[in-house]
Amino acid sequence: MNFHKPKEECGIFGIYNHPEASNLTYLGLYALQHRGQESCGIVSSDGLGLHAHKSMGLGHVRYSTTGSSVIKNVQPIMVDYSRGSIAVAHNGNLVNAQIIKDELEAWGSIFQTTMDTEIIVHLLASSKANSLVERLGEALNRIKGAYCLLFITETRMIAARDPHGFRPLCLGKLGDAYVVASESCALDLIEADFIREIEPGEIIEIDKNGMTSHFPLKKAEPAPCIFEFVYFARPDSFIFGKNVYQVRKELGRELAREHKIEADVVIPVPDSGVPAAMGYAEESGIRFELGLIRNHYVGRTFIEPRQSIRHLGKG
Amino acid sequence: MNFHKPKEECGIFGIYNHPEASNLTYLGLYALQHRGQESCGIVSSDGLGLHAHKSMGLGHVRYSTTGSSVIKNVQPIMVDYSRGSIAVAHNGNLVNAQIIKDELEAWGSIFQTTMDTEIIVHLLASSKANSLVERLGEALNRIKGAYCLLFITETRMIAARDPHGFRPLCLGKLGDAYVVASESCALDLIEADFIREIEPGEIIEIDKNGMTSHFPLKKAEPAPCIFEFVYFARPDSFIFGKNVYQVRKELGRELAREHKIEADVVIPVPDSGVPAAMGYAEESGIRFELGLIRNHYVGRTFIEPRQSIRHLGKG
Amino acid sequence: MNFHKPKEECGIFGIYNHPEASNLTYLGLYALQHRGQESCGIVSSDGLGLHAHKSMGLGHVRYSTTGSSVIKNVQPIMVDYSRGSIAVAHNGNLVNAQIIKDELEAWGSIFQTTMDTEIIVHLLASSKANSLVERLGEALNRIKGAYCLLFITETRMIAARDPHGFRPLCLGKLGDAYVVASESCALDLIEADFIREIEPGEIIEIDKNGMTSHFPLKKAEPAPCIFEFVYFARPDSFIFGKNVYQVRKELGRELAREHKIEADVVIPVPDSGVPAAMGYAEESGIRFELGLIRNHYVGRTFIEPRQSIRHLGKG
Amino acid sequence: MNFHKPKEECGIFGIYNHPEASNLTYLGLYALQHRGQESCGIVSSDGLGLHAHKSMGLGHVRYSTTGSSVIKNVQPIMVDYSRGSIAVAHNGNLVNAQIIKDELEAWGSIFQTTMDTEIIVHLLASSKANSLVERLGEALNRIKGAYCLLFITETRMIAARDPHGFRPLCLGKLGDAYVVASESCALDLIEADFIREIEPGEIIEIDKNGMTSHFPLKKAEPAPCIFEFVYFARPDSFIFGKNVYQVRKELGRELAREHKIEADVVIPVPDSGVPAAMGYAEESGIRFELGLIRNHYVGRTFIEPRQSIRHLGKG
Repeated sequence: MNFHKPKEECGIFGIYNHPEASNLTYLGLYALQHRGQESCGIVSSDGLGLHAHKSMGLGHVRYSTTGSSVIKNVQPIMVDYSRGSIAVAHNGNLVNAQIIKDELEAWGSIFQTTMDTEIIVHLLASSKANSLVERLGEALNRIKGAYCLLFITETRMIAARDPHGFRPLCLGKLGDAYVVASESCALDLIEADFIREIEPGEIIEIDKNGMTSHFPLKKAEPAPCIFEFVYFARPDSFIFGKNVYQVRKELGRELAREHKIEADVVIPVPDSGVPAAMGYAEESGIRFELGLIRNHYVGRTFIEPRQSIRHLGKG
Repeated sequence: MNFHKPKEECGIFGIYNHPEASNLTYLGLYALQHRGQESCGIVSSDGLGLHAHKSMGLGHVRYSTTGSSVIKNVQPIMVDYSRGSIAVAHNGNLVNAQIIKDELEAWGSIFQTTMDTEIIVHLLASSKANSLVERLGEALNRIKGAYCLLFITETRMIAARDPHGFRPLCLGKLGDAYVVASESCALDLIEADFIREIEPGEIIEIDKNGMTSHFPLKKAEPAPCIFEFVYFARPDSFIFGKNVYQVRKELGRELAREHKIEADVVIPVPDSGVPAAMGYAEESGIRFELGLIRNHYVGRTFIEPRQSIRHLGKG
Repeated sequence: MNFHKPKEECGIFGIYNHPEASNLTYLGLYALQHRGQESCGIVSSDGLGLHAHKSMGLGHVRYSTTGSSVIKNVQPIMVDYSRGSIAVAHNGNLVNAQIIKDELEAWGSIFQTTMDTEIIVHLLASSKANSLVERLGEALNRIKGAYCLLFITETRMIAARDPHGFRPLCLGKLGDAYVVASESCALDLIEADFIREIEPGEIIEIDKNGMTSHFPLKKAEPAPCIFEFVYFARPDSFIFGKNVYQVRKELGRELAREHKIEADVVIPVPDSGVPAAMGYAEESGIRFELGLIRNHYVGRTFIEPRQSIRHLGKG
Repeated sequence: MNFHKPKEECGIFGIYNHPEASNLTYLGLYALQHRGQESCGIVSSDGLGLHAHKSMGLGHVRYSTTGSSVIKNVQPIMVDYSRGSIAVAHNGNLVNAQIIKDELEAWGSIFQTTMDTEIIVHLLASSKANSLVERLGEALNRIKGAYCLLFITETRMIAARDPHGFRPLCLGKLGDAYVVASESCALDLIEADFIREIEPGEIIEIDKNGMTSHFPLKKAEPAPCIFEFVYFARPDSFIFGKNVYQVRKELGRELAREHKIEADVVIPVPDSGVPAAMGYAEESGIRFELGLIRNHYVGRTFIEPRQSIRHLGKG
């Protein structure tokens, strides 16, 4: 199924105004690990500088394909620019990255990573607008593609979701603290309340005065990524208005209605295929059985000594 | 459920007469990782010395409780004694360990680990019988408890299972090579044929002339450990004459027959509880649904910053 | 003596046109380890991209004070800009770094490290001049301070030394390959021939046509750093026109002439103080003896259990 | 000079009755690092069990040749035997090790390491004498070779030096605490007072009643190892009744008297050769100069990419 796999499945998490911000960010990323085990990073702020581990936390887990699994590409990115320091975590992919990168380089910019995220930060830094949200609006109106973004500065947290809403992003509260996460399961783990999903095209600004919502981006057709339901998201998450587990079961039921077959048993490919197989079995009346084992303890067999036994390493 | 958990759940694997013995032992232990992630070790032999990685392989994965998770207790144990070198891997627990240890120390023996296995090797070394199997028979007739044992010397491999048959141990063949493993799933991964289970009280000796079976131990009542079926073993393994997955489903069905309840859904505790819940649902006619997530990516939450959020780390 | 210690003592090494460029760069840095053990990095190029480990090599060892010993500050820095990719290694400190950084940020630049080196790369990228040497000349005429710089691009290597010549930098040849290093001891280790020191204010460009020398920088008074002779450089190096060991001995002799004292023995503080003590002993006629031990095996005592024995950890 | 190098140069350190025993043992081993960087270990006791890090400390640094640089050979060795627990650290080599090992195996003993030390512990455990010192006397009268030994049990520390006195061992006091170390430099670092060297053939027993001296071993000719003076010991140590630095200088002077040559300069091979060269220069009147550099930062060049540059890695 690898040929169908999109290039990036990341998870982001942010929390504002909580004395245990860093620890809760760790727990939030823990709940989002299924979205990426390649790297992770945490930045936090105490309202003064970005290094003190208090009050605000911002985290990122990452999965990417070949070529960029290097330390310089670990997120969050932190930079200094004319307005101070800013850290950003990003889930998604831009489609016009190279065009904008060429423009920025012609203008004199230098690039130290190979991540799209760095382009967004350059655009933000070169905007002359007054407020951070306005500058971010200017920057995001120049890029195209899928993105969920979380920023923290010394004093505020900003969340943004692309106008198509390709990837999920939701908002929660834990006491007085605001929480933003890729999936609702991260809110559940820290026992935060789910408030709502962040809208496609919405920018949310959280500071000491509370939360404000902005819609500076051009409207676009909704386009939630089907792979979130099929593969990426955790079954207990609520994304794109629906529970992932229920969607998976319904997909199985629909498959049974569209493709009737005669068979003795329905056997799922674990783990994301289990609910779909259960739905198929329920709808078709064919018996459901487990028949494949997933070895959870290591990712893959890393010694494959010679051709004749190489195919065995799939336990 | 920890209060019920037996102290040791280990896995052992041995192969005799195969040019890729070490690599196949690695794969065998990989299939047995569910029996212990605390430590593992491999010893191999080329028919001359125990260090050359050829021809024979012997491996061990280990899980143990507090106090003994130290490097000196990693198995297999390797020792020199009057008859040469011997390595041993052990799954089980002795009940008269301290009594025998006291006797051995009174006689002048020194102990460098805290494992029962070292006691068995002392008994073996102090026997004056002629053959290794006879010496092993003498040693094992002095100990009581649960054990599956695998030994390799420069030239042979020996497997032994206690007279009660508390723990599983099976025999297979891969071409001309003999394989012994805690569970049949390790044979499946390396595509070895399952021959049979090793009998309670049986000692099997494998050398260049093939395999011979011995029964030098006093008979005892069969007492297979129920936790192997309930919790330890992998569902695709065949142990104590039965398939683990089928036993788990049947346990669920039996529970439904013995304890009828009114309920909307049956929800399993993953992973070992899934087949039992499926059996319960089938027998009772109550709907089966998944409702709990197991986070596979890390064993446990290792930061628990303060009391108020400590209970959260269970994702 | 820490209060007098300058903030940075780094070593840089580059080689152009040698099939073993990466390995020789490793050896060159090995010879320069006395200039920094905090971090090191190597970049190499095969004439096409900066990652292939062939033909050109560029390395850096680093020592810095508190606050910046983090992974993002490891050199060489590698960036993409409008003219392609460039890597740079830097030994020195700028005195007008903050002023230029503020200007660059006002213009829209973002900074991802806290190193002066990043400022130089920004200046280079924003220059509109035609050739790399011209752009570098423009950039360097805007900065003030101590610097030795080495750049490699896909096709060339550039070395630059500040107009005051604060830090040493020398040029050598190994067969057809050009070598640039902080100290001549790095040339000796790889058996390269010493050609000459790079002049204060000189920019040397090495490409497939050979070496060319440029002097685009404003002239300044020579100001070699005395700490190179006293402390930083290796005694077998030839820097600022002199052999370090001979200078150290002569400093000791001069001290003996200026400050006559009556004493029984002259005892050096190892290691850099040994030649000076030898010179003092020779000139004064007072006996030279060793009396202090430097423990070479670890940098410092890292456990200092409580106040009463903390002062002991100086072996 | 490797062909002349003896197989083992270890350092041992013990302290009895000090609340910072573990930390002082760390510092003592730090001072003895020149005697071995291959492995080190510390055991301590609070008078009850050997694991609590209080009151008594015992440490070992080790250098050995090929074949035995494995984790199972790290000292101190800790064993349980009929009289409780005992830990031992050993500097030296036995010459009749194999003969005794064969005897012990014939009797039923098993061996888990390849160190001579394990043989001594077996002999100790099999003795039927009443006191630990008597059992140790019996054990040591059966072995031949070079050894300095330190033992700790729950309640006492024992030091022993072989009858020939091949290796150095000295006794000190730090307040009420007794200290034993391979070289006096370890006493100096922790500011303990030097009392005296432990005599060849002497066994010293330290417990809560103080120190007692025993001489149960057969007398032998004194045979201090010349390599201690030439190479192993630290120049500031006092061993075999003399200061190492003074002995090295006197060896240089004697060489000058025995072998007069005409030469311009005397250049030492650092570090142990420096005092001898100074003595030679003083006696002969030939000028002393440094001319060789020892790179202290790493032990050796570990990449040697191909034959043509392999000889370069000697910086």
